Amino acid sequence: MGTQEPTFTGWLGHNPASTKGNMKWETFTPKPFTDDDIEIKISHCGICGSDLHTLRSGWGKSLYPVCVGHEIVGRAVRVGKKAGERRGVKVGDRVGVGAQNGSCLKADCDDCSEGMENYCRKATGTYNSKYPDGSKSYGGYATHHRATSNFVFKIPDALSSADAAPMLCGGVTVYSPLRQNECGPGKKVGIVGVGGLGHFGVLFAKALGADRVVGISRSATKKEDVLKLGADAYIATSEDKNWSRVHSRTLDLIVCTVSSPDMPIEKYLHLLRRGGKFIQVGAPEDKLPALGAFALIGKGCSIGGSNIGSPAEIQEMLEFAAEKGIKPWIQEVPMKDANKAIVDMEAGKARYRIVLVNEEGARL
Amino acid sequence: MGTQEPTFTGWLGHNPASTKGNMKWETFTPKPFTDDDIEIKISHCGICGSDLHTLRSGWGKSLYPVCVGHEIVGRAVRVGKKAGERRGVKVGDRVGVGAQNGSCLKADCDDCSEGMENYCRKATGTYNSKYPDGSKSYGGYATHHRATSNFVFKIPDALSSADAAPMLCGGVTVYSPLRQNECGPGKKVGIVGVGGLGHFGVLFAKALGADRVVGISRSATKKEDVLKLGADAYIATSEDKNWSRVHSRTLDLIVCTVSSPDMPIEKYLHLLRRGGKFIQVGAPEDKLPALGAFALIGKGCSIGGSNIGSPAEIQEMLEFAAEKGIKPWIQEVPMKDANKAIVDMEAGKARYRIVLVNEEGARL
Repeated sequence: MGTQEPTFTGWLGHNPASTKGNMKWETFTPKPFTDDDIEIKISHCGICGSDLHTLRSGWGKSLYPVCVGHEIVGRAVRVGKKAGERRGVKVGDRVGVGAQNGSCLKADCDDCSEGMENYCRKATGTYNSKYPDGSKSYGGYATHHRATSNFVFKIPDALSSADAAPMLCGGVTVYSPLRQNECGPGKKVGIVGVGGLGHFGVLFAKALGADRVVGISRSATKKEDVLKLGADAYIATSEDKNWSRVHSRTLDLIVCTVSSPDMPIEKYLHLLRRGGKFIQVGAPEDKLPALGAFALIGKGCSIGGSNIGSPAEIQEMLEFAAEKGIKPWIQEVPMKDANKAIVDMEAGKARYRIVLVNEEGARL
Repeated sequence: MGTQEPTFTGWLGHNPASTKGNMKWETFTPKPFTDDDIEIKISHCGICGSDLHTLRSGWGKSLYPVCVGHEIVGRAVRVGKKAGERRGVKVGDRVGVGAQNGSCLKADCDDCSEGMENYCRKATGTYNSKYPDGSKSYGGYATHHRATSNFVFKIPDALSSADAAPMLCGGVTVYSPLRQNECGPGKKVGIVGVGGLGHFGVLFAKALGADRVVGISRSATKKEDVLKLGADAYIATSEDKNWSRVHSRTLDLIVCTVSSPDMPIEKYLHLLRRGGKFIQVGAPEDKLPALGAFALIGKGCSIGGSNIGSPAEIQEMLEFAAEKGIKPWIQEVPMKDANKAIVDMEAGKARYRIVLVNEEGARL
C-alpha cells in the first residue's frame, strides 16, 4: 500500500490571476493512500464560490499550486481496508465528497465526538489544506480525488451525479442551518442572495415545509426564477420601496448566502420577528458591516454563522433530496472548459450552479 | 378619578449637560391616573447606565425635561380599580417598577400575547417615553411614580427595598438572557464588564447553577471583588497575555454588559465553544465593532441581544433572589445627592450599584 503512488491531473491555479481563467491542466501528487482512504475517479465537480476566493487568495494566501473544486462526484476506484466499513463503500460505487476531507475524529474532540466534524479545529479542507501527515489536499477540477472515508458519501440512485455534486457543498451549506434552526411547518424563512447557495436555500426550505419562503436579492432580475423554484415571495432590495419596513417582522429565520460585505444587514434584521435568527453562510473576504446593538437588543434576535454541514447532515440531505425529488438548476460544462466556466461564475452568470463534467468519467 | 391630578417632584434634566450634575429638583405632572394604574410613593431608586445615556441624549434626542430612574421601589399609595386585580397589589404594599411602564397587551400582538411584553413595539418606557394618551413618562428620581399595573411588582418580604431596586432593571437585564439561554448546570458562562449589570450577572449565573462563571473585564482591579461575588475565574483583557487563546473555546454563553463600542468582540467570540452564544445587553451609543463572518461561521456561534426582561421574568427573578438570598453590592445615597451620585456613576465609581434613597420614603 502506498508504494505505487499515481499522479493525478487537474486544473492548477498558480497565483491570484488564475481566477481570470489562467488555471493550467497539469499533474499533481495526491495524498499518500491509506487504509482509511477512498480514491475516486471524478465524473462531476460543481463550481463553488469558495473556489474563486481560494484561487485569488481572497481568504488569505493560498497554498499554490491549488486544484480547487469540492463538490465532487465519481466512482470509487480504490477503497482502503478500513475505509469500506465506515460507509459501506465498494469499488465501483457512485460516491461524493464535499468541502471537508478530514477531521481528528478523536473521542476527546467536542466537535467530532458529537458528530459535528465540520467544526473540528483539525479539519482538513478538500483543497488548499494539509492532512495530518503534512501532504496537501487537491480538489475536484481533476481526474481523480482521494479523501478520508468519513467524508465520502454514497449517492442515492435517485439523484443524478450532476445534481448531487453541487449539493455536497452548496446544498448542505444551506441545508444545515435550515435544519439546525428548525425550518419547517410554522416557520417563515428568508433566503438572502439567489446564487448557487441561495437557490438551494429556496428549494430546501420549501421541501422542509416552511410556511413561507421569501427570496431576497438586490435586483428583480431573478424574481421569476425564484418563484419558479418555489418561493412564495420575492424582495428586490434595490427596487422595492421601503422594503424593510413593509416586510418588518415577517420572518423567523434568514439564511444569508451573500459573500459580499456590502449588504444592508440592519435592514435584513428588520425583517425578523422577535427572537429571529439571521444565519450567515456566505463568507465575505472583508468584515461584515458594523451594526448597532439595538438592532439585536430591540427584538432579542441574533446573527449566527454556519459552516458547511456535518457528514451526518450531508448523508441526510442526499437522502432527503432523493426522497423529495429535489432538482437543482445547473449548467453542465465540460471539464476542459473549466477556465471559461470560472470566469462565467465570477461574472455571476451561473444559473444557478455550474457543474464541470469529465467526459470520460461521466461515461462510467 | 383623574380630576385632582397631583404634582410630583423630582430631579429633572433639561439638556445633555445634566449628566454633569445639573439636574434640578422641580415639579412635574405625571400621566393622568387611570383604573389600570398604580401610584407609588418612592423610597428607593437605583441609578442605571440608561439614566446617563438618556440625560445626555446619547441614544437620540431626549424628551427634555426628563426625570430618569427606572429601578423604583416604594409603597403603593393609590391603586386603580382594575390595577389591583392584575397583580394583587393593595394600597400600602411594597412594590417595584423596572424600565418598562406599559405595552399594548393586545391579543394580536405576538410579543404581549406570548408574555414577552418587553419586546412590544408599542412599549412605553418608564421615563423619556410617551403613553398611548400622549402624556410623557417620568422616572424614579422623584417623590412619586405612576405605572401601568402590568409593570408593577410586589417585592418579596425577604428582599430589602434597597437590594430589590437595582434588580428591576440591572438585575433582570442579565437574568433574562441567562434564563433564555439555559444558564445552569452543565454550562460555562462568561460575564463581560463588571459594573452594575455584570455584578448581577455573576451573582445570578452562579445562583442558577452554572458549572463555571468567569468575570471578564479590562483591568484586574475588580478581580478580587468578582471572585468574592462568586465567580470561579477572572480574565483581565488588558493584562492577561493571549487571553483569548489561553481561554479559547471554554464558554457556552457570554453575556456582555459593556455599553462602550470599543470592545474586542472577535476575541470574546474566541472564548465560545461551538454553537456558543454571545448576548449583548449593554447598548453602546455607537455601532458595535465590525467582525469577520468567519468568527461566527467557524464555530457556528452567534451574537444576539436581549432587552431587559418580561414582567413574568421580573417576578420570577425577585422570587428567585429572595429564595437564594441574593445580595447585590450597593451603595445607598440620599436622593438629595442625586447630582453627585450620577457624576460618580459616570466616573465608574459605583460598587456596583448606587441606590438613591428618599429619606421620607424609606421610613414608610
